[in-house]
Amino acid sequence: MSDLPSRIDIQEEGPREGFQIEPGPIATARKIELIDALTETGLKKIQVASYVNPKRVPGWADADEVVKGFKRKEGVAHHVLWLNEKGLQRAIAADDIYMFGSISTTTSETFMGMNTNRGFKENVGVQRNQIAMYQEHGIPVTRASIMTAWGCNFEGDIPPARVVERLEELLGLEAETGIDIDIISLADTVGWATPKSVKEVVGAVRNRWPDKRICLHLHDTRGCGIANVYAGLEMGVDLYDSSVAGLGGCPFAGHKGAAGNVTTEDIVFMCDEMGVETGVDLEALIECARLAEDIVGHDLPGKVMRGGALSALRRDAKAQAAHA
Amino acid sequence: MSDLPSRIDIQEEGPREGFQIEPGPIATARKIELIDALTETGLKKIQVASYVNPKRVPGWADADEVVKGFKRKEGVAHHVLWLNEKGLQRAIAADDIYMFGSISTTTSETFMGMNTNRGFKENVGVQRNQIAMYQEHGIPVTRASIMTAWGCNFEGDIPPARVVERLEELLGLEAETGIDIDIISLADTVGWATPKSVKEVVGAVRNRWPDKRICLHLHDTRGCGIANVYAGLEMGVDLYDSSVAGLGGCPFAGHKGAAGNVTTEDIVFMCDEMGVETGVDLEALIECARLAEDIVGHDLPGKVMRGGALSALRRDAKAQAAHA
Repeated sequence: MSDLPSRIDIQEEGPREGFQIEPGPIATARKIELIDALTETGLKKIQVASYVNPKRVPGWADADEVVKGFKRKEGVAHHVLWLNEKGLQRAIAADDIYMFGSISTTTSETFMGMNTNRGFKENVGVQRNQIAMYQEHGIPVTRASIMTAWGCNFEGDIPPARVVERLEELLGLEAETGIDIDIISLADTVGWATPKSVKEVVGAVRNRWPDKRICLHLHDTRGCGIANVYAGLEMGVDLYDSSVAGLGGCPFAGHKGAAGNVTTEDIVFMCDEMGVETGVDLEALIECARLAEDIVGHDLPGKVMRGGALSALRRDAKAQAAHA
Repeated sequence: MSDLPSRIDIQEEGPREGFQIEPGPIATARKIELIDALTETGLKKIQVASYVNPKRVPGWADADEVVKGFKRKEGVAHHVLWLNEKGLQRAIAADDIYMFGSISTTTSETFMGMNTNRGFKENVGVQRNQIAMYQEHGIPVTRASIMTAWGCNFEGDIPPARVVERLEELLGLEAETGIDIDIISLADTVGWATPKSVKEVVGAVRNRWPDKRICLHLHDTRGCGIANVYAGLEMGVDLYDSSVAGLGGCPFAGHKGAAGNVTTEDIVFMCDEMGVETGVDLEALIECARLAEDIVGHDLPGKVMRGGALSALRRDAKAQAAHA
């Protein structure tokens, strides 16, 4: 049996992902309501909004109002997504937003081309410019991420060696620019990973960069999400992205096939039960998941919000046993 | 990294579980349609109906018609559930039904009392009578199963030693009656298991009975189902109960909290991708899952039926690469 880490950190991405994908408009106040509830669960890092073009992402036309409106709390890092300097400027102008820079690549040049109209070589230049932009604003660049790290819908299977090769190229910018990347984020963007391949890719990346922390960003497209988290735990990975209630994934009517991140409270449940600390209050988080469902107005994929935590059942069982 | 088994067997329970829990009536012909489709996927064992009191389980009032109507196929064992001699007699009277006897217990006397109005001691007597009934009809008694093997909603956590203790009592009937149990089925009846505790219970049972095959029957009440299957694979367990599309579990409107078996095609996907043979055609099975959803008329929990298999994407990627 493997040794699991004694503690993990969870980076909540539900609000940003979830409110982006929903077809109907969601009131700003309700977005803030969910963020405020999440802030009280013990989660330490929450992505709260997207500073993007409202013409392309109408769900985040109210990003400024949301960011202005939610309650800050000591020890909780609220951050936002941006895709260009304009977005970054908005984040800088906002109060109390946790700022860090990241650079990124993919394993698949086809996927990169479809997404950003770049090739690998061109992307290095773009990332170099990003770093310069962050440095100009005094923002530390601490994270490198790689998409389609397990497979690509256009290029098929991705060998672990290719993940290392592309990260090698990206992390070449570290020495060149003097940044200090401490987290490598491996994203299963389109749901190709299984527990076995999670272990293979994590192993290959850790062998090459033993001092960097690995983060897993796992989409639950084909039902392996939570098993992939467990495989990550078995490899000692202690940092996961996830979404409350499975927000952002909408496997039901009208969105068939689109699945988001693995569900935060399902991870917290599994960890709690296995003695892996998350610092998150599961029952409070389950309430957030139910709130998220109420806000979007349809079922979301999370399971433990329906099954319920075990703590109340345990308390009743103990009371019963003491009474008998 | 663990060695996974090279091959597993899956016992499909979707039709029996699913058509029992649905609130609305389902046409007999449609039940037969799903069973016939499942029979062509490569599944070797399918539970097709329940011979129970139609007053208590109206969904199976047409069990005789379903059993008469589905197509038999060489190499596929179709079987039915019964709970008493009357049900057994109906199964004996039916053509080409795979017959085997099983004995059962639970870890929790409270749960047993609520379910069957028996205590542990009384249950041994009932199981002894069951064995006599099977022996009278020349039916081999080959399976012993234990419910709430990881936890009970009334008694709380169940230590692995208690699972062994209760199985010890049940398997005492082997020597006494001359039966030969080859499968021990461990059921997570109410969704308390996690990968860690799956390993602990499987380890404890295997240490005590190294020559018996272990079967896992895992309900996905709290989202750990597929991770628990993976933990079973890591322990070398090569026999799983499951339900196509997650039939029987209905975590959506009207059935909140009721979750059934882990989803068959999600297990097959994970196994296929990890090189663990199942003998099942994933794409044919995905069609069955979609058919099941069409038959019940609402969304079911299975994931890979929405995300899709990877084989077509792989074929396209190879064609693209060859063309380039």
